[in-house]
Amino acid sequence: IYKVTWDLESAEKGGYEHFMLKEMYEQPKAVRDTLMPRLDDENRILLDELSLTPEQLNHLKKIIIIACGTAWHAGLVGKAAIEKFVRIPVEVEIASEFRYRDPFVDERTLVIAVSQSGETADTLAALREAKMKGAHVMTVTNVVGSRISREAQDVFYTWAGPEIAVASTKAYITQVMALYLIGLKMAELRAQMPQEEITKIVQELKELPSKIQQILDHQEKIKELANKQIHQHHAFYIGRGLDDYTAREGSLKLKEISYVHSEAIAAGELKHGTIALLEKGTLVVAMATQEPLYDKMVSNMKEVKARGAYVIAVTKASLEKEMQQSADVVFSVPDTLDILSPVLSVVPLQLFSYYMAVARGADVDKPKNLAKSVTVE
Amino acid sequence: IYKVTWDLESAEKGGYEHFMLKEMYEQPKAVRDTLMPRLDDENRILLDELSLTPEQLNHLKKIIIIACGTAWHAGLVGKAAIEKFVRIPVEVEIASEFRYRDPFVDERTLVIAVSQSGETADTLAALREAKMKGAHVMTVTNVVGSRISREAQDVFYTWAGPEIAVASTKAYITQVMALYLIGLKMAELRAQMPQEEITKIVQELKELPSKIQQILDHQEKIKELANKQIHQHHAFYIGRGLDDYTAREGSLKLKEISYVHSEAIAAGELKHGTIALLEKGTLVVAMATQEPLYDKMVSNMKEVKARGAYVIAVTKASLEKEMQQSADVVFSVPDTLDILSPVLSVVPLQLFSYYMAVARGADVDKPKNLAKSVTVE
Repeated sequence: IYKVTWDLESAEKGGYEHFMLKEMYEQPKAVRDTLMPRLDDENRILLDELSLTPEQLNHLKKIIIIACGTAWHAGLVGKAAIEKFVRIPVEVEIASEFRYRDPFVDERTLVIAVSQSGETADTLAALREAKMKGAHVMTVTNVVGSRISREAQDVFYTWAGPEIAVASTKAYITQVMALYLIGLKMAELRAQMPQEEITKIVQELKELPSKIQQILDHQEKIKELANKQIHQHHAFYIGRGLDDYTAREGSLKLKEISYVHSEAIAAGELKHGTIALLEKGTLVVAMATQEPLYDKMVSNMKEVKARGAYVIAVTKASLEKEMQQSADVVFSVPDTLDILSPVLSVVPLQLFSYYMAVARGADVDKPKNLAKSVTVE
Repeated sequence: IYKVTWDLESAEKGGYEHFMLKEMYEQPKAVRDTLMPRLDDENRILLDELSLTPEQLNHLKKIIIIACGTAWHAGLVGKAAIEKFVRIPVEVEIASEFRYRDPFVDERTLVIAVSQSGETADTLAALREAKMKGAHVMTVTNVVGSRISREAQDVFYTWAGPEIAVASTKAYITQVMALYLIGLKMAELRAQMPQEEITKIVQELKELPSKIQQILDHQEKIKELANKQIHQHHAFYIGRGLDDYTAREGSLKLKEISYVHSEAIAAGELKHGTIALLEKGTLVVAMATQEPLYDKMVSNMKEVKARGAYVIAVTKASLEKEMQQSADVVFSVPDTLDILSPVLSVVPLQLFSYYMAVARGADVDKPKNLAKSVTVE
């Protein structure tokens, strides 16, 4: 018998207008709760959840992250982080696609299934298939005792607390945190990174909750911005690398709660078709938090500006001033390591979607046609 | 000195209203011209273009297909085919993303760069990076003497003839053919498939030109359908597996020439957000040509029908009758092997986009904001 330790009390709105708003405000705590129990006093990562020995880890050929929807976006960030930290190839698969294409999986594969509810039907089926083929299966989930948690060999619980709003926010952010920690622990066990480098990243991870809080404290600007954009029927989110993944998550948020037809495109792909749709005033959200990709992004932003698009840029504080020239509005998030920026840069996008939905009169917590947990295939 | 053998004469419209229409009608010939010179009298594949020895091929760990836009969609089909034929892992990368993420590439990697023009800036840069890292680099291109053809070690020319319309049709279809042939030849050289099985697939490949012709001969139905849908501002293309890739290509076609905001979604992902956008009359194009995925697709189609969407299904002749119950309109293509179906099922989507664009008064051959060959990054 598994005991679920959430109570009804904690599931109430606690003064917030919507669960989604409440849950966005719980993100600093959710990140802290996910992170802190996994660190010792010297900022070393404890991760009993990962049962693989260093020998087994060295024997691994690849990692496959399996997920759907928002969790798939967390997986994309996880791929970037794990490949960088561990130098092992990572694939990210949509669960409903993975199952039907006879994938290459064997006992030298680690599969990480990511699912907030732990009940996502396609993800569960994909995990079973991978296990049958001999893979070591791990899950990142938010619900103790969920079906996926019972079938996985290793379970990493994101301690986000109950998430009620259909549009995932704090669960997403803790999934990303989980994948960072898994990547860093594997890098340590495979001796892939010097301990001091890992410690440096851990110190930066510990700064994230207060940096998220800073963004939440400046939400007025985003609210105003959203109120001015409620007439939009279309939106395009662009980015490169990690910013592309955050753009996808931001676009999905807008789509699911405010019913704006929003689409995310890798910025470099714009010219291969999508740019044809841009007209005067079309909303484009451009993510530019990555230093090495900054110039390329600015050049893509110039292209969309030239077609008359209204460009909202999300960048980091140290680039804000420079960015003013290339966008109509700039929103900046506190500086952090480039690889960790998705945890911060997604927050203004969540807030923007929320205020767009509220201003457009949508039922924020229960968007039409959507269920919190997709338990059918 | 490279001699380009096309003449101005052949670049004329030859009685067709637009180059795009002419080029769609040239597809049977383009497929035949790409295929036949690579077969001997016993239907065995000659492929001098592939310079790797069986030993080198056996030594390969993976293949990376690099491309942008439409060519990237051809790459997705190529991945499915090569993985099936050769049982070697294939990754498909967007060129503008590949370059900036420190990818795993070494001398046991074969990179196949796909570019109609052979001048795509991002693809060229990605190919150079892969070559520098020791990969064997091959290209599938349509233009003799193009920059990418000069820098690749192996060159597979698609003999599609000059493509003038910005929206690629015959070049796409020949890129897919090229990747089938490369996959089959590799399967033969690595002794991965019995010769008779390869021959059977080759025989089916030879049937494709006349089957494409059959689709073109029944284009009236698609034209009528398009004329009734010109009021649409949004469209969603859905599919699973190979059908997902064709859906992406069909969606891009509609987007680039008719300025409808069209988006392709893996059918299983619909419930994780996009389904919120569906209203009464929203256009959904559902691809269902794959026997093993048929029931799953029908169940996704029921979901979108339940929200009032107008569903156009594309299936194969033998499934047409059954499909009538699940869609508002059904268009079927001739039966072929499931793995080869993308070459046929894309044709009605091309025609649909073309007639939508014509009916909406768009400049079909030169859509706004787009260039035929993207030679800047």
